[in-house]
Amino acid sequence: MEYPHRFGVIVIGGGHAGTEAALAAARMGVDTVLLTHNIETLGQMSCNPAIGGIGKSHLVREIDALGGAMARATDRGGIQFRVLNARKGPAVRATRAQADRVRYKAAIRGILENQPHLTLFQQSVDDLIVENGRCVGAVTNMGLRFHADAVVLTAGTFLGGVIHVGLDNHQGGRAGDQPSNALARRLRELPFRVDRLKTGTPPRIDGKSVDFSVMEEQWGDDPLPVMSYLGKVEEHPRQTCCFITHTNERTHDIIRAGFDRSPMFTGVIEGTGPRYCPSIEDKVNRYPEKNSHQIFVEPEGLDTHELYPNGISTSLPFDVQMEAVRSIRGFENAHITRPGYAIEYDYFNPQDLKHSLETKHMPGLFFAGQINGTTGYEEAGAQGLLAGLNAARLSQERDPWTPRRDEAYIGVLVDDLITMGTREPYRMFTSRAEYRLLLREDNADLRLTEQGRELGLVDDERWAAYCAKREGMETEQARLKATWVRPDTPEAERVNALLDKPLPHEYNLMDLLKRPELNYRPLAEAAGLAPAADAVIEQVEIVAKYAGYIDRQEAEIAKLRAAEDQPLPADFDYQVVKGLSNEVKQKLNEVRPATIGQAGRIPGVTPAAISLLLIFLKKHQHQTARQA
Amino acid sequence: MEYPHRFGVIVIGGGHAGTEAALAAARMGVDTVLLTHNIETLGQMSCNPAIGGIGKSHLVREIDALGGAMARATDRGGIQFRVLNARKGPAVRATRAQADRVRYKAAIRGILENQPHLTLFQQSVDDLIVENGRCVGAVTNMGLRFHADAVVLTAGTFLGGVIHVGLDNHQGGRAGDQPSNALARRLRELPFRVDRLKTGTPPRIDGKSVDFSVMEEQWGDDPLPVMSYLGKVEEHPRQTCCFITHTNERTHDIIRAGFDRSPMFTGVIEGTGPRYCPSIEDKVNRYPEKNSHQIFVEPEGLDTHELYPNGISTSLPFDVQMEAVRSIRGFENAHITRPGYAIEYDYFNPQDLKHSLETKHMPGLFFAGQINGTTGYEEAGAQGLLAGLNAARLSQERDPWTPRRDEAYIGVLVDDLITMGTREPYRMFTSRAEYRLLLREDNADLRLTEQGRELGLVDDERWAAYCAKREGMETEQARLKATWVRPDTPEAERVNALLDKPLPHEYNLMDLLKRPELNYRPLAEAAGLAPAADAVIEQVEIVAKYAGYIDRQEAEIAKLRAAEDQPLPADFDYQVVKGLSNEVKQKLNEVRPATIGQAGRIPGVTPAAISLLLIFLKKHQHQTARQA
Ligand SMILES: Cc1cc2nc3c(=O)[nH]c(=O)nc-3n(C[C@H](O)[C@H](O)[C@H](O)COP(=O)(O)OP(=O)(O)OC[C@H]3O[C@@H](n4cnc5c(N)ncnc54)[C@H](O)[C@@H]3O)c2cc1C
Ligand SMILES: Cc1cc2nc3c(=O)[nH]c(=O)nc-3n(C[C@H](O)[C@H](O)[C@H](O)COP(=O)(O)OP(=O)(O)OC[C@H]3O[C@@H](n4cnc5c(N)ncnc54)[C@H](O)[C@@H]3O)c2cc1C
Repeated sequence: MEYPHRFGVIVIGGGHAGTEAALAAARMGVDTVLLTHNIETLGQMSCNPAIGGIGKSHLVREIDALGGAMARATDRGGIQFRVLNARKGPAVRATRAQADRVRYKAAIRGILENQPHLTLFQQSVDDLIVENGRCVGAVTNMGLRFHADAVVLTAGTFLGGVIHVGLDNHQGGRAGDQPSNALARRLRELPFRVDRLKTGTPPRIDGKSVDFSVMEEQWGDDPLPVMSYLGKVEEHPRQTCCFITHTNERTHDIIRAGFDRSPMFTGVIEGTGPRYCPSIEDKVNRYPEKNSHQIFVEPEGLDTHELYPNGISTSLPFDVQMEAVRSIRGFENAHITRPGYAIEYDYFNPQDLKHSLETKHMPGLFFAGQINGTTGYEEAGAQGLLAGLNAARLSQERDPWTPRRDEAYIGVLVDDLITMGTREPYRMFTSRAEYRLLLREDNADLRLTEQGRELGLVDDERWAAYCAKREGMETEQARLKATWVRPDTPEAERVNALLDKPLPHEYNLMDLLKRPELNYRPLAEAAGLAPAADAVIEQVEIVAKYAGYIDRQEAEIAKLRAAEDQPLPADFDYQVVKGLSNEVKQKLNEVRPATIGQAGRIPGVTPAAISLLLIFLKKHQHQTARQA
Repeated sequence: MEYPHRFGVIVIGGGHAGTEAALAAARMGVDTVLLTHNIETLGQMSCNPAIGGIGKSHLVREIDALGGAMARATDRGGIQFRVLNARKGPAVRATRAQADRVRYKAAIRGILENQPHLTLFQQSVDDLIVENGRCVGAVTNMGLRFHADAVVLTAGTFLGGVIHVGLDNHQGGRAGDQPSNALARRLRELPFRVDRLKTGTPPRIDGKSVDFSVMEEQWGDDPLPVMSYLGKVEEHPRQTCCFITHTNERTHDIIRAGFDRSPMFTGVIEGTGPRYCPSIEDKVNRYPEKNSHQIFVEPEGLDTHELYPNGISTSLPFDVQMEAVRSIRGFENAHITRPGYAIEYDYFNPQDLKHSLETKHMPGLFFAGQINGTTGYEEAGAQGLLAGLNAARLSQERDPWTPRRDEAYIGVLVDDLITMGTREPYRMFTSRAEYRLLLREDNADLRLTEQGRELGLVDDERWAAYCAKREGMETEQARLKATWVRPDTPEAERVNALLDKPLPHEYNLMDLLKRPELNYRPLAEAAGLAPAADAVIEQVEIVAKYAGYIDRQEAEIAKLRAAEDQPLPADFDYQVVKGLSNEVKQKLNEVRPATIGQAGRIPGVTPAAISLLLIFLKKHQHQTARQA
């Protein structure tokens, strides 16, 4: 039968991608339905109970800046918050929160249930409705047909999911959940390039069977960080601590002795696993010289004894898992409550997607999350938001919107996937962004909230907070520039006390702030200025101190953008450009692009390669001009 | 592989039966493992979010008196508490609580995680290990083999589960969960009589789409009741209210128009459904003269908008569900979040069980819960507790323990099932108990906690509370008997004010309390006595007021028990005994039991039939004696 209401957007799947997709489309005022297996598993964390970390918190803040749910749920569910790289530059600074699984899920469900224009419906989707090559709807397993202008598929690890423990395997979407086989079969009939990936999870351990006294404690930061730009420390539940232990030679021997029954090493698993989140057997195999690996022992929540031993993801047979776990300090009597396992699943070559995350081969159908070859909640959420908003824009008959690589990690993520594809689960790192210093986690709101507001993603509360911060920054910057410290005043004396050499002449506070040894708070105090709001101080300080670098990156971007139309001679010899990889040279030779812009859009031709080309062109300007 | 630890008891399934079974065995100090699909669904309520009600709260209190979890979890998860039949006799008085699904589940999981001797392990069981006809273990879907002295199977509606919505159906253990097909196939190879039953659930509704203003509010009681003997009102979360609405003629027309696509009426579903919890289509069909049925609109929790419309369970096609729901007052714009459905599943003929719930055909294997043909959380929990404790006793090489019909509803439940079997989902009613006045929900502790303590089920906290109550009662009864009210004293004047006629002579307070018009509190106040504890007052009052009836029931039981060995003449003509059903007469004629005790153990010969036989024998004593 036909569902009696036609929607603007259908989202299939209620994981991290699906929830952000559905919320984004609904925030834009488009009538949206979220179809998912089970309302109880909305926002479920399939693997580690943590959000954020380097590169990842950048995505979370961008989702947040665009009005998404992940950061807000983290503030309500987080039980240990830390700022990583706090002493390094602001580009790589990142916030990470340990989350209480139950509270995180409850927060996501609460946000979903209270979102206007969003309808939740519990049903498994078995098929898509395709008319004249366009995707116009979905069919559930009881034959209920939903129609919409656009469909966002976010089925995670469920498509053709197979769970492996040792040489045993069985079908499943993740432990305890059924796979989506009917839908997987149907998708394989459509013109998408499908392949297999795998990911894994460690065994869970009963905390009552663990000796914490021999482990190192790791507490969160004080003062407590927040994840969302609207977050408040008061939202956090009780905070708790994590522990650190290590594998040892005996652990590694036990693991090695299990290699012959490992589904990975015996070829039972065909899919490639995440390079940066390897299983423990992978680590033991790849780094034979290391005789110990670190394990973060993370609580699964405030009301459970279950622990997540971060660092020993495995699909070894269960007897090996048990023995290996019990060889670890503090785990001598550990009881495993859930075995570790690997899961293999279908993913689609993201090169078949547009930047909007609409599929090239089927208008109206968007893909987001794990099915695009990524790994991680944050990567999934970021794609979900983008796909949801572009599905909504399609429904509104508007052009798609995508942030550029210099605007957002979301832009980097999508551009990387679409341009280069991926043969292994893709995760975000700050090193993937050329303009790291611009794409900080502290300024995602300044980069995106205005656009989000225009897109209809940002509500009044967030908008007001953003405007206040923006105005606060401008006022403060003006005040610092207007406040002078003159030698031989009491202010100057107090400032001099913070310096190696006394001030030779008068300076305004903005200039002083640029000095590495002067920080905002002591400086303001010395100058007798009441401090601004925390968020304002942070921005004003970073902008002052990194102004030089930031200007240079901005100039580079401007240059690159200006170079879009710069012509490339038809007979240009790419072999002579130093630094280009053979792969890039070959691709350029094949395509022979007419402009720099076109070159940049060739899959596999990286922004770094374009930079090299530009430098080369500038150097040999006369030469090439003469040749032409 | 072999799990490296041998357990005393294995429990398969983490529903209401499985959790009570595992907890009971572990409380007795027997090493117990609970194997279940998914730790996240431990204690999940598959259907209505409520515990207790008439007949059912009696079971819950018995489970509680024996140290079980259900009542305690209800006190922590209950969001509306009511005492039903408060103005009727204490035998049929019952407590009912609306539960917050998430909080109830969390409370159960908390109790499980903190139970010594209990190990939780997340895995699906695919097979049993049978050696020399004995069940000695279970095998999970990754081939992990667990051995134990006894195995308790509590797979609920999961064995061969098929979910029906209209004429569409698919496999599932309940909505969102996979069925247990491998295990179901395996069990069908074993010598058990297997058949199919079905049960159903209503669609869930988004409260945001409901007009509550046209519905009747229903608040809980004030003062707030508790469910557990150890319960405290302070444990309850915030309380909320339910609503009442009704179906109407239009609703019934819509439903009737869907009959030709009903899986029940078209014969697609073969299993029999619960007679006392019929689907709405069943009600419309069976009672054509009724033009309205009541619907209790129950919140699913404090943090969700989802509602459970109690009274419109259905497996009609989804379009009919939608139309029918929207024809109901207040539901005109209702959005369904989860469709209603029916589920068919395998159950085992409980006549193949012993009173201990061990299977007759396979020593070491116990069955409990829905798989024995019952319906309801309370019925499942009660069986689980009994099976768990007897499995533990088997492991301890002790004889089984079963409460008699005159000791507990658990005894009635098990005896009914085993003696008579069931062809439809069996649920508890107070009318099923012959000795209703003894089996009250207020005295389950007095009936069972001492035995529970001997069995090792009752911990020190509960034991201390029980002893205090018991002593309090004795002290108070002694005090009431020793306190005399003499005419012409100020006490007598105050008592007279409570009576129609003044006291003619002196009375002790116990005798006064027996008068229907005098209640404890005003009487104690009149007599100038400080009142006893609430629980003590309740007992002392009921015992005083119902002493006559209670004594009579106790005498009857004693008589029956004494009659156990009373001989039945070999040529006894059962045809002449008035009131015996033809079925009973036929069975007695076939078996020709030697004693009343033996007659009572014949399947299908009910306690009522034995009563009739005894009366007949007494009446015709001389006659039969002469005949003999
Ligand atoms: C075993 C395992 C290990 C992992 N390890 C890591 C790791 O080490 N590091 C890391 O960063 N990430 C890891 N992940 C990945 C992380 O869980 C995912 O990246 C993230 O959950 C992806 O989000 P998603 O929304 O794309 O999919 P999911 O979170 O998988 O959500 C998919 C959703 O779609 C629903 N669904 C699927 N099919 C249908 C259908 N046909 N109809 C209706 N609903 C449907 C599901 O019920 C679910 O709600 C792991 C995941 C698993 C399962
Ligand atoms: C659709 C529906 C409607 C219902 N309607 C009503 C009603 O109207 N009134 C009423 O009183 N009751 C109703 N019930 C019944 C009520 O839910 C059950 O009586 C009660 O849940 C039974 O408890 P149980 O422990 O026997 O089984 P369940 O609660 O079903 O628990 C079974 C457990 O076993 C686990 N399991 C199953 N197979 C395996 C395996 N192979 N390996 C490991 N674990 C396994 C499952 O994961 C689950 O945890 C309904 C149930 C359903 C599903």
